[in-house]
Amino acid sequence: MEFIINQAEWSKAVSEVSRAVSGKATNPILTGIKIEAKQNSLNLVGSNNDMVIEKLISTSEKLEIIHTGSIVVSAKHLNELIKKLPNDMHVMLEDNLSVKIKSNEIITTLSGFDAGEYPVLPEIDHSDGFQLTSEELKNIVKHTVFATSKNETKPVLTGVHFTLQNNSLICVATNSQRLSFIKHSLHTDLNESFILPSITLSEVGKLYNGYSSEIDVFIKKSTIVFKSSNLAVYSKLIDGKYPSTSSLIPEESKTTLIVNTKDLLNAIYRASIFASESRNNNVKIQLYDDSKIIVSSNSSSIGQIEETMKVKHVSGDKELSITFDGNYMKDALVIIDQEEIMLCFNGSFKPIVLIPRGKTSNIQLISPVRA
Amino acid sequence: MEFIINQAEWSKAVSEVSRAVSGKATNPILTGIKIEAKQNSLNLVGSNNDMVIEKLISTSEKLEIIHTGSIVVSAKHLNELIKKLPNDMHVMLEDNLSVKIKSNEIITTLSGFDAGEYPVLPEIDHSDGFQLTSEELKNIVKHTVFATSKNETKPVLTGVHFTLQNNSLICVATNSQRLSFIKHSLHTDLNESFILPSITLSEVGKLYNGYSSEIDVFIKKSTIVFKSSNLAVYSKLIDGKYPSTSSLIPEESKTTLIVNTKDLLNAIYRASIFASESRNNNVKIQLYDDSKIIVSSNSSSIGQIEETMKVKHVSGDKELSITFDGNYMKDALVIIDQEEIMLCFNGSFKPIVLIPRGKTSNIQLISPVRA
Repeated sequence: MEFIINQAEWSKAVSEVSRAVSGKATNPILTGIKIEAKQNSLNLVGSNNDMVIEKLISTSEKLEIIHTGSIVVSAKHLNELIKKLPNDMHVMLEDNLSVKIKSNEIITTLSGFDAGEYPVLPEIDHSDGFQLTSEELKNIVKHTVFATSKNETKPVLTGVHFTLQNNSLICVATNSQRLSFIKHSLHTDLNESFILPSITLSEVGKLYNGYSSEIDVFIKKSTIVFKSSNLAVYSKLIDGKYPSTSSLIPEESKTTLIVNTKDLLNAIYRASIFASESRNNNVKIQLYDDSKIIVSSNSSSIGQIEETMKVKHVSGDKELSITFDGNYMKDALVIIDQEEIMLCFNGSFKPIVLIPRGKTSNIQLISPVRA
Repeated sequence: MEFIINQAEWSKAVSEVSRAVSGKATNPILTGIKIEAKQNSLNLVGSNNDMVIEKLISTSEKLEIIHTGSIVVSAKHLNELIKKLPNDMHVMLEDNLSVKIKSNEIITTLSGFDAGEYPVLPEIDHSDGFQLTSEELKNIVKHTVFATSKNETKPVLTGVHFTLQNNSLICVATNSQRLSFIKHSLHTDLNESFILPSITLSEVGKLYNGYSSEIDVFIKKSTIVFKSSNLAVYSKLIDGKYPSTSSLIPEESKTTLIVNTKDLLNAIYRASIFASESRNNNVKIQLYDDSKIIVSSNSSSIGQIEETMKVKHVSGDKELSITFDGNYMKDALVIIDQEEIMLCFNGSFKPIVLIPRGKTSNIQLISPVRA
């Protein structure tokens, strides 16, 4: 293996595939990146037990392949070294277990592993798939990842549930106390659902951030692949049955309010200061005087806050008092771009429904807590 | 106590005095800030067992005192709350143990402590003192704090040694393996030395960053005060005898090199990647061919690096090979603004002396390590 490569190009690619590599992998070869020089490209692979990232750099004025071949070297050290090298690099296999990298007057040797021992990539059937833009992907990440469960006792809830049907993609995340739902229209014949680990979804969102073409997505049994011309991310899916959530979103509501999103968010921020020592970050909303709400919280040790806020519109039952987790409300409001939000209530013991005004493709639920 | 105050003004002051407050103080009242409304000013005090910060806001269009009085309230909650309040605040004592803060339609009450129970500030004799500009203070922080010891077994080495004599201030920090020395000219009749905790010095540097007048410094037995018109920082000094360091800086050297600071720093960064698994981050410099140095490092598990660098000037003995801790060399070089640096050697077993070219007011020493 021997090639000459541009510093910036290689540094970016190595840092991308490194995102899948953990320094604490039990199998030492997985702490490395597989570098494979082919006739017309350099392929880099980084992986852990759940995810594989593969990057391809085609030959150009930035990459010249002199001899084909392959090796696996430590992701951490390769990453640090390339970032600090000043110029084009001349990379040569010394033997199967070490590689020489020269840049100007700097000569380095990195120890490695035999590439023959690196796990083989999963095979992918390119028939069953759909396409997403990076903008859609980013939107899915933003509306779902935060709402997944951090608790491993119900593994399915640590992932995001994707459902493809009737030319639409529905993504749902919940931790049982709050739920976030987002729907996209897309062209697909698939009728399928699967649970994607939230960590994979985050990584895919970052890796394809700003990518200008469509991203192909293929699913086969327990594996998913996100794929563009020079980048592929393979991930295991989470096994298990996701709870049915479609019936959770009520068709009607007893009381509906429309408020300014940012004003409510600021009120929740303030109230949360006083809620921080209660078990569920208890914050209370009460309808008052038919056209205002009072956002309040109190703690015997910290003190209390009571804030009166104008409501743009009220309809339905004017009796309303509900207590919820202030942190969940912050998380829900912070992702909303719309200036106004619709809050739907069905009494003190039923979930609050949040719908950004003029954007029903995103719905969120927050369960009340005991006052 | 009752006053009306501008949000930005109060938020800045509370966040400044909070720097001395720890959430984990064993004495609960020290988790708070003392707020004292006087006839013509609002005084804020935050403290821990070693340091006190006092801030004064004078009455102006940004502060109106209605009634004098005082209370102590949680630094953490006051800080968070004020940052999130939208406008001028009306602050009123409810009783000795709680304060009401109103801003627009937002009414909050914070629980507190009786200000009578807050520790009294140390008294200061305003005769024995000297003055520093914020620029000088910043320079002292930059050249000393990093070089102090993080190990509490020799408490004096966790501080910075200040010596006032012959109209100069000399500050020294060392952890026994490396030393940094900086000298300032100033007008003083004092002949005195003391050891300032490095954490106080850092905080003082941050608090006075950008301050345009001179800062008064007073010393009295075991206490030091940094003081401007509206800010004072009191600190305990470290008790004990600082080791004599003046004899450590050699008058002569066997070999002297002049090199580009940034080039050497980059070479050390790269070499340190390979040194990270050795006990002392071993990096080696060898003089080569009378006009070049080789910077190298190697590790059986990671690999090796060897880099040839031009030297601007060499004088003295041309035989040189020395191994040192790459991290100490990085720390030493990173604070040097001068384009070129003079490296003085007295053989492989004597400390390396670093002097920024054209700036002898700062000298650093790095002990060699076993190759």
